[in-house]
Amino acid sequence: MATTRFHDDTPDVDGLYADLAAADLQPLWVQPGLLTLTPGRLTPHIWRWKTLRDLAERSGDLVGIDRGGDRRVLSLSHPDLGGLPFATHTLWGAVQFLGGGELAPAHRHTPAALRFVLEGSGVWTLVNGDPLHMAPGDLVLTPSWTWHEHHNPGTEPMIWFDGLDLPLVRSLDAMFFEPGGEELTSYERTPVSHTEHLYSGAGLLPAGEQAAVEDPASGRSSRLLAYRWPSVDAALARLIETTGRRAVSVRYADPATGRDIMPTLRAEVHRVLAGHRTRTVRTVGSGIWVVFRGSGATVIDGRRFRWTMGDMFVTPSWAAVDHEADGDADLFLLSDRPVLEALGLARAEQTRQQDFLAEEA
Amino acid sequence: MATTRFHDDTPDVDGLYADLAAADLQPLWVQPGLLTLTPGRLTPHIWRWKTLRDLAERSGDLVGIDRGGDRRVLSLSHPDLGGLPFATHTLWGAVQFLGGGELAPAHRHTPAALRFVLEGSGVWTLVNGDPLHMAPGDLVLTPSWTWHEHHNPGTEPMIWFDGLDLPLVRSLDAMFFEPGGEELTSYERTPVSHTEHLYSGAGLLPAGEQAAVEDPASGRSSRLLAYRWPSVDAALARLIETTGRRAVSVRYADPATGRDIMPTLRAEVHRVLAGHRTRTVRTVGSGIWVVFRGSGATVIDGRRFRWTMGDMFVTPSWAAVDHEADGDADLFLLSDRPVLEALGLARAEQTRQQDFLAEEA
Amino acid sequence: MATTRFHDDTPDVDGLYADLAAADLQPLWVQPGLLTLTPGRLTPHIWRWKTLRDLAERSGDLVGIDRGGDRRVLSLSHPDLGGLPFATHTLWGAVQFLGGGELAPAHRHTPAALRFVLEGSGVWTLVNGDPLHMAPGDLVLTPSWTWHEHHNPGTEPMIWFDGLDLPLVRSLDAMFFEPGGEELTSYERTPVSHTEHLYSGAGLLPAGEQAAVEDPASGRSSRLLAYRWPSVDAALARLIETTGRRAVSVRYADPATGRDIMPTLRAEVHRVLAGHRTRTVRTVGSGIWVVFRGSGATVIDGRRFRWTMGDMFVTPSWAAVDHEADGDADLFLLSDRPVLEALGLARAEQTRQQDFLAEEA
Amino acid sequence: MATTRFHDDTPDVDGLYADLAAADLQPLWVQPGLLTLTPGRLTPHIWRWKTLRDLAERSGDLVGIDRGGDRRVLSLSHPDLGGLPFATHTLWGAVQFLGGGELAPAHRHTPAALRFVLEGSGVWTLVNGDPLHMAPGDLVLTPSWTWHEHHNPGTEPMIWFDGLDLPLVRSLDAMFFEPGGEELTSYERTPVSHTEHLYSGAGLLPAGEQAAVEDPASGRSSRLLAYRWPSVDAALARLIETTGRRAVSVRYADPATGRDIMPTLRAEVHRVLAGHRTRTVRTVGSGIWVVFRGSGATVIDGRRFRWTMGDMFVTPSWAAVDHEADGDADLFLLSDRPVLEALGLARAEQTRQQDFLAEEA
Repeated sequence: MATTRFHDDTPDVDGLYADLAAADLQPLWVQPGLLTLTPGRLTPHIWRWKTLRDLAERSGDLVGIDRGGDRRVLSLSHPDLGGLPFATHTLWGAVQFLGGGELAPAHRHTPAALRFVLEGSGVWTLVNGDPLHMAPGDLVLTPSWTWHEHHNPGTEPMIWFDGLDLPLVRSLDAMFFEPGGEELTSYERTPVSHTEHLYSGAGLLPAGEQAAVEDPASGRSSRLLAYRWPSVDAALARLIETTGRRAVSVRYADPATGRDIMPTLRAEVHRVLAGHRTRTVRTVGSGIWVVFRGSGATVIDGRRFRWTMGDMFVTPSWAAVDHEADGDADLFLLSDRPVLEALGLARAEQTRQQDFLAEEA
Repeated sequence: MATTRFHDDTPDVDGLYADLAAADLQPLWVQPGLLTLTPGRLTPHIWRWKTLRDLAERSGDLVGIDRGGDRRVLSLSHPDLGGLPFATHTLWGAVQFLGGGELAPAHRHTPAALRFVLEGSGVWTLVNGDPLHMAPGDLVLTPSWTWHEHHNPGTEPMIWFDGLDLPLVRSLDAMFFEPGGEELTSYERTPVSHTEHLYSGAGLLPAGEQAAVEDPASGRSSRLLAYRWPSVDAALARLIETTGRRAVSVRYADPATGRDIMPTLRAEVHRVLAGHRTRTVRTVGSGIWVVFRGSGATVIDGRRFRWTMGDMFVTPSWAAVDHEADGDADLFLLSDRPVLEALGLARAEQTRQQDFLAEEA
Repeated sequence: MATTRFHDDTPDVDGLYADLAAADLQPLWVQPGLLTLTPGRLTPHIWRWKTLRDLAERSGDLVGIDRGGDRRVLSLSHPDLGGLPFATHTLWGAVQFLGGGELAPAHRHTPAALRFVLEGSGVWTLVNGDPLHMAPGDLVLTPSWTWHEHHNPGTEPMIWFDGLDLPLVRSLDAMFFEPGGEELTSYERTPVSHTEHLYSGAGLLPAGEQAAVEDPASGRSSRLLAYRWPSVDAALARLIETTGRRAVSVRYADPATGRDIMPTLRAEVHRVLAGHRTRTVRTVGSGIWVVFRGSGATVIDGRRFRWTMGDMFVTPSWAAVDHEADGDADLFLLSDRPVLEALGLARAEQTRQQDFLAEEA
Repeated sequence: MATTRFHDDTPDVDGLYADLAAADLQPLWVQPGLLTLTPGRLTPHIWRWKTLRDLAERSGDLVGIDRGGDRRVLSLSHPDLGGLPFATHTLWGAVQFLGGGELAPAHRHTPAALRFVLEGSGVWTLVNGDPLHMAPGDLVLTPSWTWHEHHNPGTEPMIWFDGLDLPLVRSLDAMFFEPGGEELTSYERTPVSHTEHLYSGAGLLPAGEQAAVEDPASGRSSRLLAYRWPSVDAALARLIETTGRRAVSVRYADPATGRDIMPTLRAEVHRVLAGHRTRTVRTVGSGIWVVFRGSGATVIDGRRFRWTMGDMFVTPSWAAVDHEADGDADLFLLSDRPVLEALGLARAEQTRQQDFLAEEA
């Protein structure tokens, strides 16, 4: 029997507590910690690229990837989450290593996934048969319940960041999984995918798509499945030029609706110019940050985390967060913010850091 | 250090596993249970009214409710959830007992709550100052972050079912709580609340409310805060008369938008006529059923649970469910279905029960 | 050739104007009246119930209604509209007279229509086969492209107000019409229609309707097709009681979405208590007001129109409007406001009347 | 008195008709033409580029443009519209000529406007101060109630197509106009505008724009105000490549929502490859087509209109329409389709042309 048994000095009340436990009931009045004044289940945490890259390569050497097996994935496992392979309570973060000539076979699942490429080139991810070429800085989407597989026909290995809503989907008990068949998918190695042919003109949509746009029952995930780094880089540069700000950010969106790439996931890139420190903000919801370019530091609830290219760190819900850059820096952010917005639980505020700043190793 | 350490017979791989654990990383390929073919984290479970009522009364006798303390709440604690006071992974269910002359003081929190009255009368719940009278079968809402307090100025105790999205809000790390001040709220004991004066005409809205209707940023919770049992009873009777069906259900909705009462919670009443057995369905998402009238049985994944007035039971995500009634029966249902719909994770299908039916005690 | 020929004293320019006209072109620079500073194509106008009722009865005596013919409808023909049978540039208003034993046969058309009953009882309007009983003060809808017919099986004649978006649909060149077949529709004379069985519980919807609610492609018109006067009367009384105001109004809405009854039409009832004068407002869009109860006056752009039961008057776009009541008064309002809102053209402001008030006969 | 007086042989009925007319009422039963079986108020019509260009140049020579005057605009005046300067019942089409060194001063109005450049270069349109450079094939928007002015600082004249919803706004009596002040707006002649800096990355939005996306009260018109021809050309080419079709079309959309550029106007470009004939379709709503490239013919309700670059023609509501191209052709289309969709009046169907095809001069 799993129900907690509370105890009391009064025999009558103690007897009540015993009977409650036996009946799978719990008295609320002895559980003061249940309703906290603010969020705060997690501490911040950082993983270093040097370690991630080294262990990814060793895994590539030691652990084969073959038909029937799984992805060669090292998942960020937050120490506060009791041994679960999750970066936050809602977000999965990982590095995935695919060696030259390797193939991660097709499957599909309800958790939505995205891939942000860190190193290597010449890999194709097929999403429902559409081949998406991958290069550093590219973002590739494999939305909920789409078939997807990864092919590395070249010789160079690739390492990418995997982001998923798997912890959320699991906590909602909404997990479905289906392995693919044995046969290999054939595909053309074209630099531009079908989805990009249709949706990569800003403000230009295939005519006749209007009905789909209006219907919220369809189009829950982005119609565009690949976002190229040069486009993101150019959008950030234009934002800086036209606003004159020293810190800007772009959000990846469905070109046909402007909504987030997935109903459960938001992705952004934040650019901070050399020497600038951003305003301090709190938001409900957690994030995984991946440093794509530059070096600097992020202060989270008064703790200062220095970072450089490839480092990954977690910002907890309602933590005070700001960034500063040594040289110009680009940070990829994956967050669960659309979930909080959809459920009426989103809050944000500007704040100040605590006076004492701990410097992390 | 919390990260799981995996082991392997090969020294190199074993060393890799040790280094991964030390770096707060986990290899995905040795965790086959992570992606399940279908949902299924919970078993069904039932709590009996006889026990609930008896323990609620004993709590009323033994445990005082006073300023600074908490609600006198006995929460359903599902044995599969490791001692947490939660009915399902997303839903809180409880019985609350408020004795004659007692007062549960004001507070507010981000979890949204509803009250479905089972026994007693003469209680007022104040929501942001609006006094809502409570009688058996009434549904009273206290939406996210609204001030609420319960007053029992009479002598008769009241027992109601408490339903909240607290486990969900906690799993999203979005909990905020604020206790009320010391002063008592004065109020008029009127049978009809302000919210009912504004919103209890079907299809008749205060003019000028249009803007609010169109703006999804407002109106996340229902504008109508009290739904009276006689209205629900009449709506069910009309549905049966006009459709000729032997099982019908109504959904509680915001009269100004038709949306669910809360962005996270759906509430319905299902009426099954004597001798009828409903079709068997599966849905993603969990529910708590409260028997308001009649007796019968519910079959959940081949296990048959008999019930009578006041019993409460849980249907897990993706379980096959159908009901049969001995006499005409009304079941109140609280579910997390709007969450699954908002996040693109809703599925449902008609199905068949397994051949072997276990009869539960 | 229909194009306007402008003239000029300069021979060259005059030749240009001739060639433009010959080419079906017009020079914008000689048409200063095209872009007006504010709306104002119409003046206010009033029709008297005494006249309307008398002429309706005479039509009933003199002009038969039979299969193949048309409705016995007298349409409000605004003198500013060049002989068109339209009350405003977007709205059709009329009185319809259906004698005892008469039948207006089935047809359907894209213009949406509503009926607000002024006198008589015992008539049924069938909408796609659902029989809607009609009594004074009831509002009955026949949405775009629904089959509808009117039956008066009793001996008492009925007079109702007809409101349609016909001028709008015509100006958009979107008119479709289809006459019904020869056979008579049989129906049960029940006091409560199917639509009312389903949708007349405030905030209580048939379960499973959620998908339809979310899908803007369906549900363009109200699911509830009959609104009873006693409900409207009670809603107005509750509004007055709870707000303490001396002028209140309710909007008829789809109970499943809160949207207007038609995508093109808004209907409201305004109650003004004895001796009260309302604030003065301007809105873009036109309205037809039908006095259902009481007497008083409406000031429109400084002109004062006295009214009593059954009178109908038009308020033009952007006119300054306020009402005052001798005794408690109820005014039914039909307007094109949803059109302006949908197209981003809605404006409103509080204003003052001009100092000089003309008293109309 | 403007109301139509009907006549009848029967003295009683004739007296009724006289009294109706005197009372500003009209009998519906003598107006059979009011409800037509299908739309059809307009015939198709074509204007030739040779004529348009010649008359625009002559206007440039003869009619000055100066402060206090109007735009140098030649409006398409459909012969079916009784001398009104309108291309269809809802759409304004025109050619505007701006000579070297000329300036069309600032004003704003509720009608929304767009400019599609046909000839010339080096002009800037300022929209609320944002300078938009103009070159052939570019589409530039001046949404409802935005300040706009046109500057030609060079020596080359420019001719563009003007498209507005002016007839619609006028028929809704929603016209507001405000002239600008005397002072000249200073601006930088930059090739990329502020709006393009923010919104010209496909699927990449300035972060923090999410709230605006969700709020239908804002963002009624496109946030992107300039669409460049090379982008449209590339999008069409990608569509042809990836679909293999010989006729494709793109719709101009708000990059932040996917909605049409204006709540009242849709703009598209249709590309038809040499020798291809498109399927025949009917839609409710009217359109103005502007030939940007190539030559061919369009068949409208059995009449065949040959066209070449710069020609403009009108397709009426519910007309059967198909296109064929001699060489590869691009046609710009302006339509009122969003109006019909917003008001629940949109229909479309595939059809066949009538057997006999008239060849127009």
